[in-house]
Amino acid sequence: MKKFVNAVDNILAESLRGFAAAHADIVELSEKPVFVRRAGAPRRGKVALISGGGSGHEPLHAGFVGRGMLDAACPGQVFTAPTPDQMAAAAAAVDGGAGVLFIVKNYSGDIMNFEMGAEITGRENASIVTNDDVAVENSTYTTGRRGVAGTVLVERIVGAAAEEGADLAACRKLGEKVNGATRSMGVALTSCTVPAAGRPTFDIGDREMELGVGIHGEPGRKRVPLPAADDIAETMLNAIGGDLQPKQGAPLLLFVNGFGGTPLMELYLMYDAARRWCAGNHLTVARSLVGNYTTSLEMAGCSITLLQLDDDLLRLWDSPVHTAALRWGA
Amino acid sequence: MKKFVNAVDNILAESLRGFAAAHADIVELSEKPVFVRRAGAPRRGKVALISGGGSGHEPLHAGFVGRGMLDAACPGQVFTAPTPDQMAAAAAAVDGGAGVLFIVKNYSGDIMNFEMGAEITGRENASIVTNDDVAVENSTYTTGRRGVAGTVLVERIVGAAAEEGADLAACRKLGEKVNGATRSMGVALTSCTVPAAGRPTFDIGDREMELGVGIHGEPGRKRVPLPAADDIAETMLNAIGGDLQPKQGAPLLLFVNGFGGTPLMELYLMYDAARRWCAGNHLTVARSLVGNYTTSLEMAGCSITLLQLDDDLLRLWDSPVHTAALRWGA
Repeated sequence: MKKFVNAVDNILAESLRGFAAAHADIVELSEKPVFVRRAGAPRRGKVALISGGGSGHEPLHAGFVGRGMLDAACPGQVFTAPTPDQMAAAAAAVDGGAGVLFIVKNYSGDIMNFEMGAEITGRENASIVTNDDVAVENSTYTTGRRGVAGTVLVERIVGAAAEEGADLAACRKLGEKVNGATRSMGVALTSCTVPAAGRPTFDIGDREMELGVGIHGEPGRKRVPLPAADDIAETMLNAIGGDLQPKQGAPLLLFVNGFGGTPLMELYLMYDAARRWCAGNHLTVARSLVGNYTTSLEMAGCSITLLQLDDDLLRLWDSPVHTAALRWGA
Repeated sequence: MKKFVNAVDNILAESLRGFAAAHADIVELSEKPVFVRRAGAPRRGKVALISGGGSGHEPLHAGFVGRGMLDAACPGQVFTAPTPDQMAAAAAAVDGGAGVLFIVKNYSGDIMNFEMGAEITGRENASIVTNDDVAVENSTYTTGRRGVAGTVLVERIVGAAAEEGADLAACRKLGEKVNGATRSMGVALTSCTVPAAGRPTFDIGDREMELGVGIHGEPGRKRVPLPAADDIAETMLNAIGGDLQPKQGAPLLLFVNGFGGTPLMELYLMYDAARRWCAGNHLTVARSLVGNYTTSLEMAGCSITLLQLDDDLLRLWDSPVHTAALRWGA
């Protein structure tokens, strides 16, 4: 296993200390239990947004803590759900009196532990479960569809609304609207290696691609010989578009997300392929996001996400955001 | 070769089209000859900053075109210098009447072609050559030290000064000051694969690390068994610090740069190790940058850079920047 590591058991703690020190203007780290909170939280009267999940998907979620996005993130060990006490402690730390909204990717372990965290917090709360992955209906760790890179879009748009003063019910409703308008699918060219395992999660041939892979390396739809980039984009977007049924003339957000091991040069090439597919299908790409935002350690591959926008979502997307991994506006 | 590609000959063109479309609010693409220019350039009376070099180091340099940084970037083919006509055309496109400053990494091909570009442009110009890599004195493609990730810091700080109205001589002098106060060193855990070659640039054992690697996979100081993260940071920082001789009590910028294939989680762990080394050596880390900013395609590895700051450089570093890959401030 070729990784920068001192001791496998300390990877998460050391990485989070580095993250918190590098972004001390934006976040603060709690070590026991582990969570990352927005500097200056709680904000009185603001709905507090909390997400979390297994580590190894960085910058998700801690990289999205800050103004206009999350108030706290609860990282578990690599590809392992955080424990309920983390969510309860984070809720206590960032609740400004307007309640807590948990944003949870649809994995059985996350669902269970976030539910328990919500129960023991004793605070007013609600939850959104993201399940944007159209690849498969059930999977290794999931009943129903998996929550993947589309979660970033939910966190951003609901984070914008919470920043503007939307109440808990409105934030939850908006989150469900965004999740419902979001579809994703991913492909992997190589496996990732979980540090505690020390070997690749799956084997894949030199000329093979896993179509519909999950963000932990879970199997997708099938193993295929590596196609040309345009064909990969077409296959993913046919699946996404067939499910989303985007409206012609209405604005879309096109998001090409790297899984960690694919060069930016190739991600922009995939974005170009996806953009041409949209143009060929008379679809309007109004906003774009390209980069490594929901990763699977060093896995080579990418996902494509489409989000159907409207005027309200456009405005919220464009409003200022200031986090370690996503920032724009004043 | 496992890459997202349609045809090897079209990788650069398709990737740049994707980049320009995804960031149409910030940049415009010229295809013949190839360069990326800042939207709205030329700016009357502003010194125009132009950089460039082989592709495969993304987001360097096109990702740094925008307010407070570069006015244009000239990308060559992967790991291949751009041609003089690219620099001349870019200069003509973005010169606002205050002259052009070329920022060139110290590689023989880049130096030669930027010099020819400067000659044929017929515009007032000056050049800065970056050479921040302390690993080796001469290298595969370089006489003298290589210019590596420290180039990002030069582009940012000189870009800030140009935005404020500094003239060509002042920008050049500032660039030389920043380059002179910057030292870097890198390590590789895996090779990259140049698309046109189709196979890894170098062989490396399952438990080996290349110490002092260049950003094209050039050999460094030696091949060693993979050390612990703290030991890697210490070795790099001893070399960097021994050369830079940073002042105790004076502010430093600590930059941990990923080469493309290393997860963000490990980069923050390396940043934590580097930060502890600085603290142990009574050095003050005043600013930080962690991420994939000067990459070598999908190479796993990272570099560490230290920049000795002063009040003037701190102020310029903090001033607003708005590019695809680096943005903060209003």
